[in-house]
Amino acid sequence: MVKSSEVKWIERIRKRAGEAGTARQNGLVVGIGDDCAIFRPPGGSEDLLFTTDLLIEGVHFRRETHGAQDVGWKALARGLSDIAAMGGEPRFCLLSLALPEWADARWIDGFYTGFLRLAGRAGAPLAGGDLARAARAMCDVVVCGAAPRGKALRRDGARAGDAIYVSGALGGSALGLSSARGEARRRHLRPEPRLALGRFLRERLRATAAMDLSDGLSLDLWRLGRESKLSARIEPPPIFRGATLDQALHGGEDYELLFTVAPRTRVPTDFEGLALTRIGAMEPGTPGLVKLNGRPLPALGWDHLRAGSGQGAPAPRRRVR
Amino acid sequence: MVKSSEVKWIERIRKRAGEAGTARQNGLVVGIGDDCAIFRPPGGSEDLLFTTDLLIEGVHFRRETHGAQDVGWKALARGLSDIAAMGGEPRFCLLSLALPEWADARWIDGFYTGFLRLAGRAGAPLAGGDLARAARAMCDVVVCGAAPRGKALRRDGARAGDAIYVSGALGGSALGLSSARGEARRRHLRPEPRLALGRFLRERLRATAAMDLSDGLSLDLWRLGRESKLSARIEPPPIFRGATLDQALHGGEDYELLFTVAPRTRVPTDFEGLALTRIGAMEPGTPGLVKLNGRPLPALGWDHLRAGSGQGAPAPRRRVR
Repeated sequence: MVKSSEVKWIERIRKRAGEAGTARQNGLVVGIGDDCAIFRPPGGSEDLLFTTDLLIEGVHFRRETHGAQDVGWKALARGLSDIAAMGGEPRFCLLSLALPEWADARWIDGFYTGFLRLAGRAGAPLAGGDLARAARAMCDVVVCGAAPRGKALRRDGARAGDAIYVSGALGGSALGLSSARGEARRRHLRPEPRLALGRFLRERLRATAAMDLSDGLSLDLWRLGRESKLSARIEPPPIFRGATLDQALHGGEDYELLFTVAPRTRVPTDFEGLALTRIGAMEPGTPGLVKLNGRPLPALGWDHLRAGSGQGAPAPRRRVR
Repeated sequence: MVKSSEVKWIERIRKRAGEAGTARQNGLVVGIGDDCAIFRPPGGSEDLLFTTDLLIEGVHFRRETHGAQDVGWKALARGLSDIAAMGGEPRFCLLSLALPEWADARWIDGFYTGFLRLAGRAGAPLAGGDLARAARAMCDVVVCGAAPRGKALRRDGARAGDAIYVSGALGGSALGLSSARGEARRRHLRPEPRLALGRFLRERLRATAAMDLSDGLSLDLWRLGRESKLSARIEPPPIFRGATLDQALHGGEDYELLFTVAPRTRVPTDFEGLALTRIGAMEPGTPGLVKLNGRPLPALGWDHLRAGSGQGAPAPRRRVR
């Protein structure tokens, strides 16, 4: 049974938004419940993908430990990772930014430096936004991406027997959260959206489903299985050097890709130097259930409504099912 | 000289975002500086319009005086008003919502009731979003709209000699901010995006420029003039019953439309019962300068970065130029 307040609320909102109707007529292909909403412009050759992500001081970052440029970078990286997960190409982004009194011109400039550096690299120009005052710094970033019509990778496409893969090694960001420096710290502060890999999964491997690992493998694989109406059995994933198995299974913000491919698909051992590792297979069973080495794996990942309360550092992760 | 911190920062961000490049290749027609960003999907028959608006507890609303349904309604009304200003039709919306501890299930349900009621009426289904915890309630709403290719109404299209019009009567929302009830209070709590009027301006009157009155006539007309590189001379606008001239000139959140038409255009006295009133004309001169009865009118409207600090009610409006 799903106890998570976030999962519960998303289901509830999804149901209520669905009842409000009109979505199909308006060109919406996928609404609430995937990495991105999918919109099909009339007559267009591409589907447009939309994702939106909040980044809040005291919840997602701390002013004392996260530099302005890092905050700007990460604010955009989260949305780009969702576009990558669907095999999309970024088109543009929008940024709403609320600034507290402590945010001086230097901080704001630093924030935009980090944000626009990644926007430039990813080919996602800043097209607009909003500015406001608030007691704490926070921003909301929308990224629009595009994929050929009907070809975006979704969470609900996995089939029984499909192999499950992850890119890279997991747990690095969780390790980096408590590190002062080093590669893990860098992974935590400047995650790299896997845009080229996402396109490779869509074009070459014809992945059946994909999503990004933003809230921890245990919770994210639960979501993929739930949308695809399947269970998953896995072995331990590759672990980031120095991280624990627990961090690799439940740590958030790795922004690697989780994907499934048909059983006979030949997957290379790496993509441009980034390891691609088979960790298991999808199978018929309770939708969402994940078995690690044959035993049920609790979905302990990040619950955005339970964890944190704006009072300080992110709270400890809690069980969501 | 522009002294506003908001205006200054928007100019600065616009410049920096422009330097980051790549916008044109990606299909962006208009970026920062209008009511909406305009994106042209390859091969599509329509331009897509995107707008994003923050609504923050203690800055844009107060928990004590704004009901949950009113907050949900207003959160979406702001973006729909931007779509109306461009003569667009809503396609979908995205909602990022951060919830504090005090927001119980009843408040959240009420918020979605107000939000989805307006979404249903406007034909803007909720397609996705994000949820998070925060110390104060706040949300960011993105609305996507559509207009025929190249036909969206913009701020920069006014020509010297064009007549300036406003819809409705101004100052009602400012009056309603301090009222306990009545029509003005309702105007403040449940603004009506002028979507049908916006389409009429685009299709029938072929308005040369348009924008919505969200931050006060004096500031918004300054913006329109600045984008069109013209001055404006006006008489006092129609005043909402019970409001002052000051509220009509500088009060925000009326969400009426401000527009310009070619000098010979015949504009009806009303559109579906909503008055359309000529208040003046555009003329060559200092871009942005507004003269009321021949004397320069200071742009005293709402400055989102100066006014308010997240500590309580909106702060008094300040001079921005």
